[in-house]
Amino acid sequence: MKLYEAPPSPSSRRVSIFLKEIGVDVPREAIDIRGGDNLKEEFQAISVSGKVPTLLLDNGDSLSESVAICRYFDALHDHKGHLFGETPYEQASIEMWHRVLELDGLYLAFQAFRNLSGAYSDRERCVKAWGDESKLRVEEFLPKLEKRLEVSAYIAGDKFSIVDITGFLFVGVCIKALEIEVYGKYPAIKAWHETLAQREAFQA
Amino acid sequence: MKLYEAPPSPSSRRVSIFLKEIGVDVPREAIDIRGGDNLKEEFQAISVSGKVPTLLLDNGDSLSESVAICRYFDALHDHKGHLFGETPYEQASIEMWHRVLELDGLYLAFQAFRNLSGAYSDRERCVKAWGDESKLRVEEFLPKLEKRLEVSAYIAGDKFSIVDITGFLFVGVCIKALEIEVYGKYPAIKAWHETLAQREAFQA
Repeated sequence: MKLYEAPPSPSSRRVSIFLKEIGVDVPREAIDIRGGDNLKEEFQAISVSGKVPTLLLDNGDSLSESVAICRYFDALHDHKGHLFGETPYEQASIEMWHRVLELDGLYLAFQAFRNLSGAYSDRERCVKAWGDESKLRVEEFLPKLEKRLEVSAYIAGDKFSIVDITGFLFVGVCIKALEIEVYGKYPAIKAWHETLAQREAFQA
Repeated sequence: MKLYEAPPSPSSRRVSIFLKEIGVDVPREAIDIRGGDNLKEEFQAISVSGKVPTLLLDNGDSLSESVAICRYFDALHDHKGHLFGETPYEQASIEMWHRVLELDGLYLAFQAFRNLSGAYSDRERCVKAWGDESKLRVEEFLPKLEKRLEVSAYIAGDKFSIVDITGFLFVGVCIKALEIEVYGKYPAIKAWHETLAQREAFQA
């Protein structure tokens, strides 16, 4: 088994943090995305989406998409506190909050960053106006996240879950890549973000 | 328990088809999205994302996001052929293909439709250039789906899954809302789509 990753990218960090949280380690190999290693034929052959992270299993099967890789380890290992939920309602509620966080948060933040910075303009067409619009939508989503964290210890409820990992990375992208003021404007997000940062799995 | 839905919308159809596939029925109430019923305070109070479908449970808890609702019923009911997968690898593989289908397919198709048609311009800012770009990306994704369906009976493998429901709706949006030629250009997609259309759960 080998995990192909690009350590500083949010998607690779998502898997790294998840594995540390559930106490699992796997052999890894770093892939240079900016340099286009993931576009090479040998990598495309094992990755459906041509993206990192990708997990290659011993039988030759492979899994792409960071959340799919997390779900694989979550189902495979018997550990306390499944981060995708235990009961049907908990599983569904985590799925719901995860989708809200991803679709109204993380993916819009990615679209804002990619279209505004042109970081991948060697391989995709950028639309600056959509970058601006996406950033505006991210700024409109933050008050909703603040409202949720005013009444809930974690995003999906009173237990830590995969959604908090996604949320942590989302807030990081907002602050660092999009230069949005978060800590000064949203005290509940700040408190939750700082609490997560202290968890061992979140240490860089 | 009550399911609030907007019957013709792809997200509501996703839940309807899923429930028929697993043989579950629930009381329903239609919500007029174009008329803005989902924007009213009483609906926003039970729906995190303010969207349909939303499932209200007897204890007052609620679930939004169509896939979260499907996952709830899949976990709750003991039935043959869980549509989110059984083994850890199957579950993860379905999650992977579902994300590929949604992020590179369905959501781009939604963004293309919304930004090009302005169907919801009373409640969101549209960026026509992103509509054009999204449509182009959908057109670039279709050959990848074709390639997959040339070698696989269903999108996530040899078993029918939630990904096929999403894929079926995606192809429908491509044909009807985006007026993309699919059947004439992609024989494997056509064959798979026609096979699904014959399943009882897919009958309108």
